[in-house]
Amino acid sequence: MTMSDLKDYLRKVAAATETTLQEILPGETDYPGSIHQLMRYSIFAGGKRIRPSLLMASFEACGGTFGDQGALKAGAALEMFHTFSLIHDDLPCMDDDDFRRGRPTAHKAFNEALAVLGGDALCIAAFEVLGSLGNIALITEIASALGTNGMLGGQVVDIESEGKTVDRETVEYIHRSKTAALIRASVRMGAIIAGASTEAIEKLSNYGNYIGLAFQVVDDILDEESTTEQLGKDAGSDRERGKATFPAVCGMEESKRYARELTESAWKEIGFLGPKGDLLHQLAEFIITRIS
Amino acid sequence: MTMSDLKDYLRKVAAATETTLQEILPGETDYPGSIHQLMRYSIFAGGKRIRPSLLMASFEACGGTFGDQGALKAGAALEMFHTFSLIHDDLPCMDDDDFRRGRPTAHKAFNEALAVLGGDALCIAAFEVLGSLGNIALITEIASALGTNGMLGGQVVDIESEGKTVDRETVEYIHRSKTAALIRASVRMGAIIAGASTEAIEKLSNYGNYIGLAFQVVDDILDEESTTEQLGKDAGSDRERGKATFPAVCGMEESKRYARELTESAWKEIGFLGPKGDLLHQLAEFIITRIS
Repeated sequence: MTMSDLKDYLRKVAAATETTLQEILPGETDYPGSIHQLMRYSIFAGGKRIRPSLLMASFEACGGTFGDQGALKAGAALEMFHTFSLIHDDLPCMDDDDFRRGRPTAHKAFNEALAVLGGDALCIAAFEVLGSLGNIALITEIASALGTNGMLGGQVVDIESEGKTVDRETVEYIHRSKTAALIRASVRMGAIIAGASTEAIEKLSNYGNYIGLAFQVVDDILDEESTTEQLGKDAGSDRERGKATFPAVCGMEESKRYARELTESAWKEIGFLGPKGDLLHQLAEFIITRIS
Repeated sequence: MTMSDLKDYLRKVAAATETTLQEILPGETDYPGSIHQLMRYSIFAGGKRIRPSLLMASFEACGGTFGDQGALKAGAALEMFHTFSLIHDDLPCMDDDDFRRGRPTAHKAFNEALAVLGGDALCIAAFEVLGSLGNIALITEIASALGTNGMLGGQVVDIESEGKTVDRETVEYIHRSKTAALIRASVRMGAIIAGASTEAIEKLSNYGNYIGLAFQVVDDILDEESTTEQLGKDAGSDRERGKATFPAVCGMEESKRYARELTESAWKEIGFLGPKGDLLHQLAEFIITRIS
């Protein structure tokens, strides 16, 4: 599999995820319209749908068939959870961001109250979607990844570290929790839906952890090195607001070296899959090549 | 069963719910401590635990045994969802309340960012608790009650109606969605855990709808008639901020008459339970006597 094949794959999953999200989400005219408009505005913002792609690739690696409705719905739910976290992160009392993906953030395009409620609604609707799949393991999996031992814990420490001198251990904690936990859950959920063995799920968990952390390290690097236009949000904004980032605590070169090391560790974990792991291998490569 | 017996029952459920919540919630020193402190501060604020009581009473009416661990955990989850909604409701961008139950609201006692995240965390932890019970019907039930067809939809219309002249139909929609949906779900979940028949669940749903609406109508009446000290929050504050309330759209006398009518309708629905319905009958009575 080449990088070009992978990009085709990502496009295919993204298109199928858009269709699934269109079906799942209430219409913009469904009463009360404003919150449904905000939910759709926020979720249809042109994201790459990395999490549904990881879920589907893991699902296929464990014997599942591309395009399975359950896997697509679970992937759509992941995007809903992810968008919920972005909407709340962008709020004035949090990161106070005015733009995301080149457009006004939800509380700017609508208002703050509706952004709080719309985020809540995406989270709850995503649980409803997962509930409809009838597999309780998916509920406990995602709840654990999103809670204070995962994403929300990372978000708290991220905010509380702003403007302070933090050590590398704290930045690792933030990134593992805030970003890697949901990416790890994406990979695990694909394996769970495919009915993979405990051993396979364990190795895929480690893979997910490594690439999740690499993903955020690369994000930190891009924030420093890219232009505002490339990012669709303010470049260098992490540094300016005193965010805890890898380049800030260990320098750019070490950050790049570490991202490569994490990717190689991820590859080792999925060696047991043989050729069935090609997609996941390439996905890890894709994450790192964003900085090459 | 007398009103005094009911009050004993409510105290027993409240005590068991406190114990369950103490076991479920992360400790105040668990990292990151601040969010866990906020979650505990908000949930251990001396509420009457009406929702867990309704769940347990419905569970018993359908053949369950008092104190069942699953029913207690589901009741604890209901309080977590309820508290999540209160924390977000109180935020400056929403109702902007400084006090609740006589104490500073979460964003006042901590800060706004932590209040958003702490609310999110209670919601997600509650899904994790329900997930641990292994009954997927509880997940879809609560997600549907909390979403934009339920609680969150009501919250949106409530906020958007502020300061406007609204009709009785709109106030009914707000109250049915914002308050009655979660109360109805409490009653349904008790029946679901007990393995009740579809017919029984349907009648209990109607009962839950009636008492949920009565509960909010009575709340509106109390907001007008009580003193600030009695309420633990500003009396008459609904009126002052132009909230859509029953007394505002149809007067105090009609509001009281309607609350009584709803209670009687609720009683009729649970006639099929015979003496096993005594507790639920008395609970409906309890809601209305708060205004007598």
